[in-house]
Amino acid sequence: MPAPPSAKALVPFVSVENMMRLVRHVGVEAMLIELEEAIETDFARWDRFEKTPRIAAHSPDGVIELMPISDGELYSFKYVNGHPKNAAGGLQTVTAIGLLAEVKTGYPLLLAEMTLLTALRTAATSALAARYLKPERARTMALIGNGAQAEFQALAMHAVCGIKTVRLYDVDSHATEKVRRNLHGMGLGLIACPSAEAAVEGADIITTSTADKRSATILTDAMVDPGVHINAIGGDCPGKTELSPLILQRSDVFVEYEPQTRIEGEIQQMGPDFPVTELWKVVVGAKPGRSEKKQTTVFDSVGFAIEDFSALRRVRQRLAGTDFHEELDLVADPDDPRDLYGMLMRAA
Amino acid sequence: MPAPPSAKALVPFVSVENMMRLVRHVGVEAMLIELEEAIETDFARWDRFEKTPRIAAHSPDGVIELMPISDGELYSFKYVNGHPKNAAGGLQTVTAIGLLAEVKTGYPLLLAEMTLLTALRTAATSALAARYLKPERARTMALIGNGAQAEFQALAMHAVCGIKTVRLYDVDSHATEKVRRNLHGMGLGLIACPSAEAAVEGADIITTSTADKRSATILTDAMVDPGVHINAIGGDCPGKTELSPLILQRSDVFVEYEPQTRIEGEIQQMGPDFPVTELWKVVVGAKPGRSEKKQTTVFDSVGFAIEDFSALRRVRQRLAGTDFHEELDLVADPDDPRDLYGMLMRAA
Repeated sequence: MPAPPSAKALVPFVSVENMMRLVRHVGVEAMLIELEEAIETDFARWDRFEKTPRIAAHSPDGVIELMPISDGELYSFKYVNGHPKNAAGGLQTVTAIGLLAEVKTGYPLLLAEMTLLTALRTAATSALAARYLKPERARTMALIGNGAQAEFQALAMHAVCGIKTVRLYDVDSHATEKVRRNLHGMGLGLIACPSAEAAVEGADIITTSTADKRSATILTDAMVDPGVHINAIGGDCPGKTELSPLILQRSDVFVEYEPQTRIEGEIQQMGPDFPVTELWKVVVGAKPGRSEKKQTTVFDSVGFAIEDFSALRRVRQRLAGTDFHEELDLVADPDDPRDLYGMLMRAA
Repeated sequence: MPAPPSAKALVPFVSVENMMRLVRHVGVEAMLIELEEAIETDFARWDRFEKTPRIAAHSPDGVIELMPISDGELYSFKYVNGHPKNAAGGLQTVTAIGLLAEVKTGYPLLLAEMTLLTALRTAATSALAARYLKPERARTMALIGNGAQAEFQALAMHAVCGIKTVRLYDVDSHATEKVRRNLHGMGLGLIACPSAEAAVEGADIITTSTADKRSATILTDAMVDPGVHINAIGGDCPGKTELSPLILQRSDVFVEYEPQTRIEGEIQQMGPDFPVTELWKVVVGAKPGRSEKKQTTVFDSVGFAIEDFSALRRVRQRLAGTDFHEELDLVADPDDPRDLYGMLMRAA
């Protein structure tokens, strides 16, 4: 038997099973609140991050992306795919894996599944934006698109923003029924609506979360009353949008990281000088969020690497003293760092 | 007890221990030959790859890089760091992790340690270049810099190019002794030399493999006789070089991927129009390799993503029917792909 790997070789790994255990241990809504706070903390120190748009490899069936980011002390990246046709084959449309590392040594600190964690951090980011942009006393949200993200969006808006009623619509009524079934007893009124038009009636927040990889008009101009906050999370790659450009024209549009959203977000439909505000500026108080009752606000969300960084950082803190992780023998650790070959041969 | 994860959730993982088992099972030299062949195969279909320079995050202590590549069917990336000060703290200067995925679905096919695998593929690439560029009947190699890469370089040149004698030099004689000890009985003559000048005497191939993160002159112009092939692998990031520019001026210089080598290689010392030849063009016969006895050739190697792709592809083939891997529960796999939340809650 070879000697077991040394501590330097071992990297904590959070499998899907352990991520589920961790989230259930903390509680879904408590976890969403923790992630929302972690993301707000990191958005508030925006200038500390070395930022790049994500690196995408497009193919006819989908996209594979790498999303790296660093604050000078920690580095993270996420591997994530988006393949709309996957669902028909019983596969996830979006799957993800993330790694957190120490900048000083380059050594990995954490490897984690991020399919679940991405759904959680996306909802937490939506809730963070909505907390700054929603109308006062917002109680009702329309949720158009009832797929894998839907429950997380509803619970984050409930936990962070005080939403009491969710008006649901999906082209597939089975998806809507799934959300009603899953969220039964969570303190939310859940109303299945026969159309997107019906869903938006009386809504203070409208969340669009559809999955088609094409330009669609999920929301027409006539469907959006002044004073509403729109949380647009489904338009997130070139050629994939959900909102009529007429809505964008009369709204104040907030984004995560402008260079990336110009390429991937709803605003790909607008000119390059269409005005937008990066959300972190609202968080630090440098720009106003919602300032008028009749103002229509749009959070044009495409997902940004800092949100993954925040989520991995928070998960790592949460792991301390728990058994919600394994140890992976991931980093070669010879006794003498120059003697990689000796390690290889002597381990026999 | 929750049900075990389904097959779709599981991704084969090659730990450091299993990579060592695999390499010892195949044999180091046999593995180097297999990797050299795999890299040649992929270099020969160069145009099929979607190529980008690697994405680097620089810090005062080192660099963290992501190296993605795709041939339209498979996608790979490597996470790799370079931290010269790590060795002083008992850590590896370079550690790496790689992932291979299916382009059609974005699903991971393999996760692997790549610290060892990078050393192997780097040596295999050096041997591939030397096979096309070395002088006829080359028997002697100088190996300057006797760190973690040294034994792999020596064995690859032995197995692929027929090198019989290696003349060793390092500023630290303990490193040289380590190589002599490790390679004892492998069929190579191993001569410890008192200086770099002594090491290059009579050498047909000169390999420079030093680790300092700065511009050094490991080889001066006077040290290099006409007709020699130089395998320069240590100069691999901005501000880190090993060769006098005078050598480059009178040599034919071959590179992996020109846009990346202009930034990271020895040729960062030369003007942007300094002529170089991409190695793949020699492999497919579009450009000559060595054509004259007195010609000095330089392989200005910085490492390219295709080499990692080839190595991961070959390792995956080699795993079939073996137990040199574990299965990681890495991809969330709900029964209904839209029901991620239901999977999370019902697994309790």
